[in-house]
Amino acid sequence: MTTEGRTVVPACEGRAVRVAAGQRVSVVDLEGGQVGDVFAFVPAPEGAGAAPEHLSAAHTRGATNRLFPEVGQQFVTDRRRPVLTLVADTSPGWHDMLIPACDPARYAALGAGAHASCADNLKRALAETGLSVPFTPQPVNVFMRIPVQDDGRLRWLPSASRPGDAITFQAVTDCVVVVSACPQDLVEINGGAPTSLAIDLRS
Amino acid sequence: MTTEGRTVVPACEGRAVRVAAGQRVSVVDLEGGQVGDVFAFVPAPEGAGAAPEHLSAAHTRGATNRLFPEVGQQFVTDRRRPVLTLVADTSPGWHDMLIPACDPARYAALGAGAHASCADNLKRALAETGLSVPFTPQPVNVFMRIPVQDDGRLRWLPSASRPGDAITFQAVTDCVVVVSACPQDLVEINGGAPTSLAIDLRS
Repeated sequence: MTTEGRTVVPACEGRAVRVAAGQRVSVVDLEGGQVGDVFAFVPAPEGAGAAPEHLSAAHTRGATNRLFPEVGQQFVTDRRRPVLTLVADTSPGWHDMLIPACDPARYAALGAGAHASCADNLKRALAETGLSVPFTPQPVNVFMRIPVQDDGRLRWLPSASRPGDAITFQAVTDCVVVVSACPQDLVEINGGAPTSLAIDLRS
Repeated sequence: MTTEGRTVVPACEGRAVRVAAGQRVSVVDLEGGQVGDVFAFVPAPEGAGAAPEHLSAAHTRGATNRLFPEVGQQFVTDRRRPVLTLVADTSPGWHDMLIPACDPARYAALGAGAHASCADNLKRALAETGLSVPFTPQPVNVFMRIPVQDDGRLRWLPSASRPGDAITFQAVTDCVVVVSACPQDLVEINGGAPTSLAIDLRS
């Protein structure tokens, strides 16, 4: 894990970075049209035991009274404490907070055999930080385009982000941010061809 | 815990019932205008260890492609397995799947001191079944009216359910269902005066 600079997240893989309070972390869509599942954890000083405090999409919706993120808002944890602020976004602005991470059960239901998944990518990336979670928190799916129709129905559309588009968060507190370059190639959210992302970390 | 018949959930408290596959469980709003936080867990034969499989609002949204429940749909767990089917609803049909359970942090932010919460009610009710969870899953908030505006903004409105209104689920698999009569009296979702609910269990 780097403390500053660029970490490439290869297509279909995940990476973790430690982010200090005040640092900025950008998720960059290198080739365009690629969804990233973003997770954040606040390691407890006391270490193991309870599930680690984590960015919670549900608690964030309750705090912001919005379905989807907007620049200036804070993401909060399951303990309702701010962890990240959304400070900039050069993409068309589609980021999902409704859909869970893909996982082996999802790919099995789609008829695939062994398949990379954001849930497995999270586990693997997090293990390198010494953290573990007994479940997969609902991620913030950057660049994922899930419009909501008037009747409450959701549509899954290909990502509209362009090469180089970036969404930038500032850490409110020390945290571990995990980004998975979503390996979904059976549903059109990544345009059918998963590509890589980058995590840019700077003070 | 009863295996059939009525379990009253006193205002601001929670109760758990064991539901066998095929049984129907109704949540009844006895006096009207009362939100119920509904959780469901599938106890694993192997017992302790991992977090128990639970009804997941996020996975259910991903499976149904809808923000809110409708009669006929299934609720799925974090392992994407169906656990409950929504089979009947005599209420005006407002049920929320976006907002997390209230908890001590929520009431602290609202300026309250010690206050009952759905998260604490869950813990307490679940303990009587021998289960525990290291986190609070996002509940299905029956009778809770959270309309979504065109711009994605959420509104918190008083519950529109009438005395005797009921929402009925059928268990797809053996499970434990927990209902908390939401103690929220600082936000108008319960019309300011929390009241009791009932859980009706029948084969």
